[in-house]
Amino acid sequence: MNVLIVYAHPEPTSFNGAMRDLAVESLTAQGNSIEVSDLYAMGWNPVAGPGDIDGPHSLATRFSLAREQTVAMENGTIAADIAAEQAKLTRADLVILQFPVWWFSMPAILKGWADRVFARGFAYLPGRKYDTGMFKGKRALVVATTGTSADTYAPDGIDGDILTVLWPIHNGLLRYTGFDVLPPYLAYMPAREDDETRAKQLADYRQRLETIAETPHLFFHPAEDYGANERLKPGVLARSGQQRNV
Amino acid sequence: MNVLIVYAHPEPTSFNGAMRDLAVESLTAQGNSIEVSDLYAMGWNPVAGPGDIDGPHSLATRFSLAREQTVAMENGTIAADIAAEQAKLTRADLVILQFPVWWFSMPAILKGWADRVFARGFAYLPGRKYDTGMFKGKRALVVATTGTSADTYAPDGIDGDILTVLWPIHNGLLRYTGFDVLPPYLAYMPAREDDETRAKQLADYRQRLETIAETPHLFFHPAEDYGANERLKPGVLARSGQQRNV
Repeated sequence: MNVLIVYAHPEPTSFNGAMRDLAVESLTAQGNSIEVSDLYAMGWNPVAGPGDIDGPHSLATRFSLAREQTVAMENGTIAADIAAEQAKLTRADLVILQFPVWWFSMPAILKGWADRVFARGFAYLPGRKYDTGMFKGKRALVVATTGTSADTYAPDGIDGDILTVLWPIHNGLLRYTGFDVLPPYLAYMPAREDDETRAKQLADYRQRLETIAETPHLFFHPAEDYGANERLKPGVLARSGQQRNV
Repeated sequence: MNVLIVYAHPEPTSFNGAMRDLAVESLTAQGNSIEVSDLYAMGWNPVAGPGDIDGPHSLATRFSLAREQTVAMENGTIAADIAAEQAKLTRADLVILQFPVWWFSMPAILKGWADRVFARGFAYLPGRKYDTGMFKGKRALVVATTGTSADTYAPDGIDGDILTVLWPIHNGLLRYTGFDVLPPYLAYMPAREDDETRAKQLADYRQRLETIAETPHLFFHPAEDYGANERLKPGVLARSGQQRNV
């Protein structure tokens, strides 16, 4: 299969860098074709705005990002750096987003990869979201390092359940656009662990990579569980772990 | 009081722009002093990295953002654009983060304001988080527009509870650094509503701004609810709305 690793860390010799290299090596050895978008190395521009469209805008008086993206996707006038990333995404069967958790989320350079690359007309359109999302059939995996312990990210931990912290990415970015989302791989505070623990984290990650084919994806409610107002129908028990019946 | 509005939208004549102008007008009329960081207008660089430090780094062999930030804060060598924002934050009694929700989170330009400005040594240090956070005594308010309805952001909605979606910002960025966090103000899909509804959204926002002094902040568990492992002590009922007992 084709794998796209979108990688966001400023230091090549970091633990994140070691995880990226391990993934390339392991996935290649399994016979896959790998592409890496190393956002820091690429000097990726994360600021979505008028520059995302080549040439004149459809409406010069007021800039609407979603509207301009839609027209640009129709006309083939989305900026070249965005188009190149979209081509990688189109080719990919599996997308890995790899990053250090900064302020409970992605580094800005990766958030801005999503803001710009997941353009309206490419990543979503009316009637094309969640079960009918544009990327239906693809899988996605979040791989991240943290600065605090696994306990802090327990459901009763001070930072909150890691799956709550990642809900905007898992449900909001990935499931919204149709991906099947694999359980994330987290390396908890590698910078504060010893070499032995770090080696085990890498070994655990390798095992995850070698068993991706048989890993069940996270559960999200299917379209038929929702009513016309996009809330769970009466009688449907919330079981995504992050939603609840009211 | 001093209010800092950090504003992230590419179009000055947008509904977000109208909300920003309303906030400046209303808060000024109440006798407050207002500063606005208009990130798009400022051309803010959101990419945290080696450029955040002026002059040589403490350890040239491997770049660690947190370590370099700490040394730079001690030595007064944090980059000038970051230092200017930190000075605004230090002056502020109330911080308003205002943005359109893009992919269930902040636009990258605002995420990167947090990544760079909330530097280690300025926004957190060992022993200085949550109840003992560096910004204790300050209040914060998230003001955002969405592209979908309030129903989709209900606890049983397809997008998930808006307070789950905002948890990384509310708990992870703001409460973590000591802020008291006010309930967010959301304008749901103003771009798809009529003029009358948009006018009501602005009027509702004005009322929120005029009643900030008496608005109770969101509940987060105090430090004494947590054990040494930073998980809720046995017998403490999870009641932040986002955490749960296990």
